Amino acid sequence: MSLKNQATNEHTANNKKPSEISKDGSFARQINQFTIPFGTDSSELPVEADRYRLIWCQACPWAHRAVIVRSILGLDKVISLGTVSPLRPRIGRVDWEFSLDENGKDPVLDVQYLSEIYLKTDSSYAGRPTVPVMVDIKKMEVVNNDYFRLTNYFETEWALFHKENAPDLYPESIREDIDALSDVIFHDINNGVYKCGFAHSQEAYEEAYESLFSRLDELENRLATNRFLFGDFITDADVRLYTTLVRFDAAYFTAFNTNRNLIREFPNLWGYARDLYETPGFGDTTDFDAIKRHYHLSITINPDKKEVAIMPKGPEETIWNTPHDRERISGKKEKFIIRS
Amino acid sequence: MSLKNQATNEHTANNKKPSEISKDGSFARQINQFTIPFGTDSSELPVEADRYRLIWCQACPWAHRAVIVRSILGLDKVISLGTVSPLRPRIGRVDWEFSLDENGKDPVLDVQYLSEIYLKTDSSYAGRPTVPVMVDIKKMEVVNNDYFRLTNYFETEWALFHKENAPDLYPESIREDIDALSDVIFHDINNGVYKCGFAHSQEAYEEAYESLFSRLDELENRLATNRFLFGDFITDADVRLYTTLVRFDAAYFTAFNTNRNLIREFPNLWGYARDLYETPGFGDTTDFDAIKRHYHLSITINPDKKEVAIMPKGPEETIWNTPHDRERISGKKEKFIIRS
Repeated sequence: MSLKNQATNEHTANNKKPSEISKDGSFARQINQFTIPFGTDSSELPVEADRYRLIWCQACPWAHRAVIVRSILGLDKVISLGTVSPLRPRIGRVDWEFSLDENGKDPVLDVQYLSEIYLKTDSSYAGRPTVPVMVDIKKMEVVNNDYFRLTNYFETEWALFHKENAPDLYPESIREDIDALSDVIFHDINNGVYKCGFAHSQEAYEEAYESLFSRLDELENRLATNRFLFGDFITDADVRLYTTLVRFDAAYFTAFNTNRNLIREFPNLWGYARDLYETPGFGDTTDFDAIKRHYHLSITINPDKKEVAIMPKGPEETIWNTPHDRERISGKKEKFIIRS
Repeated sequence: MSLKNQATNEHTANNKKPSEISKDGSFARQINQFTIPFGTDSSELPVEADRYRLIWCQACPWAHRAVIVRSILGLDKVISLGTVSPLRPRIGRVDWEFSLDENGKDPVLDVQYLSEIYLKTDSSYAGRPTVPVMVDIKKMEVVNNDYFRLTNYFETEWALFHKENAPDLYPESIREDIDALSDVIFHDINNGVYKCGFAHSQEAYEEAYESLFSRLDELENRLATNRFLFGDFITDADVRLYTTLVRFDAAYFTAFNTNRNLIREFPNLWGYARDLYETPGFGDTTDFDAIKRHYHLSITINPDKKEVAIMPKGPEETIWNTPHDRERISGKKEKFIIRS
């Protein structure tokens, strides 16, 4: 089957019944297909400099976490980065397009659409092509799109390539605790906003809304006495929470109906989010314009959402650079544990 | 032409080119057709008890102002009230329906749709049937839908029927100032939110957005030292501002893209809005559920907006009853000038 037919069939199927919507109207995110871990075992993906290209979209919270960790650890020297447009292409299927690149193609992968590389890897691939995705540029194949573990691979298996004095975002002694909290944050917050925005029933929406704000209330309390989720230093869990918080007021609150409160109405979460934003790796990889164009102007995987012409002007980006005074909690300027 | 054809033709015309959208994409609200004033002149509408029925929708800010003033002045004893549903009927034209009433008809006017009484009055009526509208139940005809002047008629020409010790909402000495401010509030705020929400071009939207928030910033300053717009006492201008403010966070911020700030983020406007909300006539005529159902679930006059299934759950209504401490500005508990 040609790429064109493949894609058209996928779209037709989606139009009849969205494949990620359960019977009760709740959103059930597709399972990632490419999940072989990075490691030293022969069955694992080898860790090599200049062998992989990370593809992201600036709007996507799942991809953003990988880009933040790559930046903080200095892996940008050994893993190249390709960027798809925040506006999904209008081609009758859900895809990502390299329309930001000269000639409309990724210069390394030489493809216009992300689906091309997924289908080249597995011609029967029928899911949405997603970011983040690690592409092996030696084989020109998708090797890992496991957004849930990718930052952890960067933090552990890729240690050999970390920059000098790179922070330890995933300290061994609290790894289980980090994983447990990340799991909760995933279900109620990271994916929780999507469960609100993509719900096909009022009940499914309200359930997701309650879980989301209960969890935010809980974290608001936690962050009253902790500068970061696990105390004085930034960990992988903070990266995961940040990518949702930074999109919340500009996108989810309006586009996904998560409108009990803005993040900037939670004093601790708001100070915390700015503390991270003002840290290298976070704010400098955050593009509000791309975020807003994606969530407000582009089509989504929900076929009931239609393209609209107006891009909401608010909120004002400059408020992210206002003082947060979070140092008072930790009593120190440093935000990272340096690996010894 | 039958009612059915009339209505169908109106809708068809609307679908081709929305009649209230200018060439530059900006929203230009239709002119009211029934504007004969109430008064004692033979060319004016006679002021009589039990002769008129006021039709409103709980969601509509223009109708809400008339209902607030009617309540504050005690005119509810002499002008009856009919209520259309906040959900516009799905009948292929823009209309209001008496679906909240038993048998789906207004018990006094005996009509299902508001358009029926407009067309009975003027069979060539081609505009949107609007609320508020005063219907002469002796003639069973629409006599006044002039939302801009209606509260002023209630405040002046209807004085004979005011309750004992009714407040003076339109003191003669500052009437010109009230009118001037009301005009500004109309263009930038009351209608300003609609200009944002109904804009058909990014430029028209952004212009309306700037005017809206500049004016809110200005009023925020004014209300730092004035408990109400004209000092210590509530006037007609406050009623007009209130009906937009009370809808802002629950509806306009998300549905009309007026998302620089929530009203509850302006300390003075937020205290002021709650001060009014907690005053008889204001909060007790405010129905957040109707407001949200209208702006989020119902079709609008903008054909690009489509019906959606999910009603946003926030914001929490209870915050409207929190302390505002605005008495500190006026130094008194009383909020009204009593007519001497």
